[in-house]
Amino acid sequence: MKVKVIVMPKQSILDPQGVAVRDAMRHHGLPGAKSVRVGRMIEVEVDGADEARLHDIARDLLSNPVIEDYQIIFE
Amino acid sequence: MKVKVIVMPKQSILDPQGVAVRDAMRHHGLPGAKSVRVGRMIEVEVDGADEARLHDIARDLLSNPVIEDYQIIFE
Repeated sequence: MKVKVIVMPKQSILDPQGVAVRDAMRHHGLPGAKSVRVGRMIEVEVDGADEARLHDIARDLLSNPVIEDYQIIFE
Repeated sequence: MKVKVIVMPKQSILDPQGVAVRDAMRHHGLPGAKSVRVGRMIEVEVDGADEARLHDIARDLLSNPVIEDYQIIFE
């Protein structure tokens, strides 16, 4: 079973890496870049995925819940 | 316009961060974790996205084409 976990900075949190990437995009010929947020994509191949356990792991291991939100996509 | 750029390590490249996360998952009650790959998810809000320009930026700025593949999702 393939599972994707997407971890993004919370909307209310300033993402300095995203701001730096946005400015670089503007200097590389994309002046319309309005906002950029940089997060992580974790692809997991797992046998017999326990959904509750995956949520625990996404919260405790893969993200920092103080500044990040996660989303789990089961495929 | 919202655009997502997903940057993942190439399949043929060893992903040590993914191996470390897989081992940690196994120790956190998910013994079925077979493989994990860790990449980046970049969300861009852009006015008047030029598709060819976005591909240039994804290749030159957001990824390292030697070890990573990128994928652009237009929403």
